[in-house]
Amino acid sequence: MAENKRIRLKKQDIEIPLDQFIVGIKNGDRATLAKAITLIESNHPDHFHAGQQLLKEIIPFTGKSVRIGITGVPGAGKSTFIDRFGTELCRLGKKVAVLAIDPSSTMTGGSILGDKTRMESLSREDNAFIRPSPSSGTLGGVHRKTRESILLCEAAGFDVILVETVGVGQSEVVVRTMVDMFLMLTITGAGDDLQGMKKGIMELVDGIIVTKADGANKDFARKTKNEYNQILHYLVPATDGWETKAYTCSSLTGEGIVELWHVVNEFVNKAKRTGVFLERRKKQTSDWLLTSIAEKLQQSFFQHEQIKSILPTMKRDVEIGNIPVSSAVEQLMNIYLTNNCHKE
Amino acid sequence: MAENKRIRLKKQDIEIPLDQFIVGIKNGDRATLAKAITLIESNHPDHFHAGQQLLKEIIPFTGKSVRIGITGVPGAGKSTFIDRFGTELCRLGKKVAVLAIDPSSTMTGGSILGDKTRMESLSREDNAFIRPSPSSGTLGGVHRKTRESILLCEAAGFDVILVETVGVGQSEVVVRTMVDMFLMLTITGAGDDLQGMKKGIMELVDGIIVTKADGANKDFARKTKNEYNQILHYLVPATDGWETKAYTCSSLTGEGIVELWHVVNEFVNKAKRTGVFLERRKKQTSDWLLTSIAEKLQQSFFQHEQIKSILPTMKRDVEIGNIPVSSAVEQLMNIYLTNNCHKE
Repeated sequence: MAENKRIRLKKQDIEIPLDQFIVGIKNGDRATLAKAITLIESNHPDHFHAGQQLLKEIIPFTGKSVRIGITGVPGAGKSTFIDRFGTELCRLGKKVAVLAIDPSSTMTGGSILGDKTRMESLSREDNAFIRPSPSSGTLGGVHRKTRESILLCEAAGFDVILVETVGVGQSEVVVRTMVDMFLMLTITGAGDDLQGMKKGIMELVDGIIVTKADGANKDFARKTKNEYNQILHYLVPATDGWETKAYTCSSLTGEGIVELWHVVNEFVNKAKRTGVFLERRKKQTSDWLLTSIAEKLQQSFFQHEQIKSILPTMKRDVEIGNIPVSSAVEQLMNIYLTNNCHKE
Repeated sequence: MAENKRIRLKKQDIEIPLDQFIVGIKNGDRATLAKAITLIESNHPDHFHAGQQLLKEIIPFTGKSVRIGITGVPGAGKSTFIDRFGTELCRLGKKVAVLAIDPSSTMTGGSILGDKTRMESLSREDNAFIRPSPSSGTLGGVHRKTRESILLCEAAGFDVILVETVGVGQSEVVVRTMVDMFLMLTITGAGDDLQGMKKGIMELVDGIIVTKADGANKDFARKTKNEYNQILHYLVPATDGWETKAYTCSSLTGEGIVELWHVVNEFVNKAKRTGVFLERRKKQTSDWLLTSIAEKLQQSFFQHEQIKSILPTMKRDVEIGNIPVSSAVEQLMNIYLTNNCHKE
């Protein structure tokens, strides 16, 4: 459990009674929300059970936000865009939560303002909550607990939840499984053009946003947008009944930012009308259940006392060709399944 | 078990006594080998246990071949290359087995000659065994049972085992985990150039073979080879102590084909000398063990009677937000682990 080292949850944080956690979250208190996420992210067994209790209590208050995933290669201007987009949403009266992976951080903090330097304007808004999670807790570029954090933010009354991905490995595929709408940011010219793009990414997103459409770059951005639209025309859209299109905007001048919020609303309304919205959420939740089962099964197996004691020898026997892999698996499974009885 | 439909193993095939299977394989009888692979590939429970018995018996006679993975986009000339390369090896006195995925076939046959049209010359060699497996049994572009088939071929005395991948999805990553040496075929010019190449593939392979280096194309092929070598120079090689390089050859004229066999030998000798060869095989086997455990755990869980009866309701409750995913997982795991006792 080397990961335990990064737990910085102070004793007083978990000694908050559960009721107080729940009241704090329902009141939209950002400090409590931050602590709750830290609790959920913790690997400590005590924290796990407290976290489960908390989730059970808050689940009836979840589900009412729009969950938006945001991806893009480094340099596409993700932080600047989220900063501006989030700030505009706050000004429209929305409560905005940002769940981001902080590549530079390896410890869990509970800071409400976090990522100050990256999202300066948004971090000053009263209706914003920014949560940078350490990249050490990530699985495929997304934090293991982002799904639970989304639920906590929803219970705290946030209307829009922006999930930022670092864009490495399988992170886009993973984020797609936890958001309603998925947007890709891109810029024109700087290597992030159509050729350098990750294969298959265009089929995953509901919108492509060409950022930095300002000044001398504006015409180029429009041209890039048109090129994307031409290609998108031939692709199967990520969401049934929604045409994935490209848009331009400028996080600097703010041009096109509010328009993107209209696009989000149009998307949500349409998807809710056709039933796609609810269906996707259901499917996401049941897929999450299946993934979690697979993880727990492995945990239970490898922490099983008899398995732990026999596995090294068995592994060696398999490695040197004394027994075939399939026979070893059969024997191990028998031990695992039989010995679970003694737990009763 | 919809997959069962594709089992075409005739009754008389599994009614062969195990001893006869073992004798046949040890004698290098290709018809028996083909039937044994069909047995191993079968999803029928009876076949599974017979297959396990067989593997246990033959495992002491495995491990002595060179396992070579061959990938490349469609059109790179994989079949033609394997045909020529295999034929040359047979002429050098080697016994060559080819395990290929047949994208057009959806049923398992036991044909020794199979893939006649694709590998015409090799299929006429007495020392060759070509096994096209149906793509329906594949996982990530590689047949689920290719590892076991490799062992059967080794027990049957084959010196060189060529594993062909169709090059889709994760197939290269999967094949890399089951071979000693991994080669990528490519051609010059036809879209399969450096830009169109799958990201990360060059870090997986031990050699890049520019095929169709004949006639007017010869100079282009050499140029492409040099371009690859320039890039390879900056990459971490797939095998410690081995410099991944590009080569040219022609399956038509045969130029460079025998030279590639020398490269293979050089690779094997070096890897054996440094210990990398054995270490990799050990690691591959223990990784295979872990993957198989994960698969079996899931099978056992989802076939568990009480889980089967409770899962649909639980799934619905989770989907509509009645209970959090993590609580559902906890309950299901308790049921699964407790109820296994009644099996004793």
